[in-house]
Amino acid sequence: MTADTSGKGLLLKADSIADTFRNEVKESLARSSHPPKLVGILATSSAPSKFYADFTRKQCEDLGIEFVLKKTGAAENSELGEGEGAEEAIIEANEDDSVHGIMVYYPIYGAQQDHYLQQIVSPLKDVEGLHFKFHYNLYHNIRFIRPQSLTSPTVGSADVLPVKDDEPPPGAVKSIIPCTPLGVVKCLEHVAVYNRILSYGDRAYGKTVTVINRSEVVGRPLAAMLANDGARVFSADIDSIQEYTKRPRISVDATWQYHPRHVVHPTNLTLQECLALSDVVVSAVPSANYKVKTEWLKDGCVCVNVAADKNFEKDVRDKASIYIPAVGKVTILMLLRNLLRLSRYKEISVASGA
Amino acid sequence: MTADTSGKGLLLKADSIADTFRNEVKESLARSSHPPKLVGILATSSAPSKFYADFTRKQCEDLGIEFVLKKTGAAENSELGEGEGAEEAIIEANEDDSVHGIMVYYPIYGAQQDHYLQQIVSPLKDVEGLHFKFHYNLYHNIRFIRPQSLTSPTVGSADVLPVKDDEPPPGAVKSIIPCTPLGVVKCLEHVAVYNRILSYGDRAYGKTVTVINRSEVVGRPLAAMLANDGARVFSADIDSIQEYTKRPRISVDATWQYHPRHVVHPTNLTLQECLALSDVVVSAVPSANYKVKTEWLKDGCVCVNVAADKNFEKDVRDKASIYIPAVGKVTILMLLRNLLRLSRYKEISVASGA
Repeated sequence: MTADTSGKGLLLKADSIADTFRNEVKESLARSSHPPKLVGILATSSAPSKFYADFTRKQCEDLGIEFVLKKTGAAENSELGEGEGAEEAIIEANEDDSVHGIMVYYPIYGAQQDHYLQQIVSPLKDVEGLHFKFHYNLYHNIRFIRPQSLTSPTVGSADVLPVKDDEPPPGAVKSIIPCTPLGVVKCLEHVAVYNRILSYGDRAYGKTVTVINRSEVVGRPLAAMLANDGARVFSADIDSIQEYTKRPRISVDATWQYHPRHVVHPTNLTLQECLALSDVVVSAVPSANYKVKTEWLKDGCVCVNVAADKNFEKDVRDKASIYIPAVGKVTILMLLRNLLRLSRYKEISVASGA
Repeated sequence: MTADTSGKGLLLKADSIADTFRNEVKESLARSSHPPKLVGILATSSAPSKFYADFTRKQCEDLGIEFVLKKTGAAENSELGEGEGAEEAIIEANEDDSVHGIMVYYPIYGAQQDHYLQQIVSPLKDVEGLHFKFHYNLYHNIRFIRPQSLTSPTVGSADVLPVKDDEPPPGAVKSIIPCTPLGVVKCLEHVAVYNRILSYGDRAYGKTVTVINRSEVVGRPLAAMLANDGARVFSADIDSIQEYTKRPRISVDATWQYHPRHVVHPTNLTLQECLALSDVVVSAVPSANYKVKTEWLKDGCVCVNVAADKNFEKDVRDKASIYIPAVGKVTILMLLRNLLRLSRYKEISVASGA
């Protein structure tokens, strides 16, 4: 990164951030006896999905992870329907003991039916972190879990374990975090929006963030994670703006004592007013036409584009001190990190005879 | 039902169909030692939701079922956000041993976040049948389950039990079916679209049905149930039309031998062509402007409106032999029937020490 003499903010590509995690994954693989196996399921004729599947293969090959792409439906044969056979392929991979992780190339049918498929993937192989149990843990700021909690059908206070530092207590493991919001958080850690002087679990304290989009896959989990980490977050979607915050501390009962979690309130602020307050703006609107107005940004803010189309205007760096135009290269490493984590959980379960 | 001398088809209100099931629920309650307890969760200021909550209370009171309405968020206090506290109320009811069933008044946040909440409700108390495990069973034509399968985290071939007639084998119970699609099927049984001469599990054979809407709550499970029961089904939504059918029999492996289930294929037929073939048309489009064209209907067909707004034109009975304008009164009884079923499962589990 050389100094930019134009007076514009820094354009930060995700590659350098991804490199850190690639090294971490490499070291972790070097320590493991068997390389884990990832199954990708491609069930549509979508060009971006095919591209992402090729990208996954390349990343896995570079790192020595076994990747098997299962093509089904329109991806296998143009006479078959979009998505045909996707569910069967998931179940087969769930039941195949040699498989450590399952990645499904969404969108397949649209948000609702895709959400159903996301629950069919066993939480023990859910590298994308899209099973409702992982979302539950994230929303409730449950960072550490007993591996066996993944094999109970319900969620609830029994899942809560103490958090004292960033390592799980004995017998516990880290929960899996959905890889796209996790990738964004890792980018924000990299650019020091997260302050390492503060305690673990509260390192975004003092920061105000606007997250544009409130889908269950990106926007809502991201807003929740940032708020659980101490930030004041405005979550904006097409209908409403909400504020996510854990301060002032809510009165907590014994259940939540280890995990002050964010609460959500409606706000009367407009998007323009939120942006004027925001140190960080993350946008994930799946539309080529949607643009965050540069003139509304706070001078010196950090902007992160998560959408496939660019949600920021060309002159964003006239206001932003740092602009990250894409996070996909970090996301894929979060997925592989989750794969390693899940394959370790499997080893723990086998070792303990569970 | 008196003969209609206008030459028009029969206008069939759901009340008489509901009465049959009200009597069934009454008899079942008379045999049980404790009346079951249903918790309703109302978290929004929506007038239709409040109306439906009052309607639930009235139905429960009439039958001697204990109903407790828990108001939270904007339903409790206009200063709170829509939906605030809904998840906490669900978890409390999950963990309250005196509660047999949980009903949440949707919509709260919109399809995606509501789908998340639907997974948070314990499958052991899910009277609406919206947990993904029940959808899985329905899509896979798994009618009978071991109660303990509800307490495992994943789905799969282990859940499959033989189906020989309409009673579950020893040690097994019937799965819970989502109450709206179930209510529609019960209406279609009532008007003899289901033919009792045919074997259980195949009584819609010979019928062609168009289902307009493919949501995970109504359209897709309904199309799947009808196809699993032998019908040829066209599933139409705004983007595409699909055909659901179990004929010709697909080559089945051992896993599915007891349950030939439907497969889904794309079709090139237009909606007009589908309607021209359809003995039954079910419409569930949540829009006051959407109308099925009467002129496209096959003469003598059966039409069922599931939407809050009427999806059929005023002259629908010029073509339809039977028109059911609303199914809500049957739906609520399906919900109470599910409540009784779940409270019996609980007794079985307690008795077997599970």
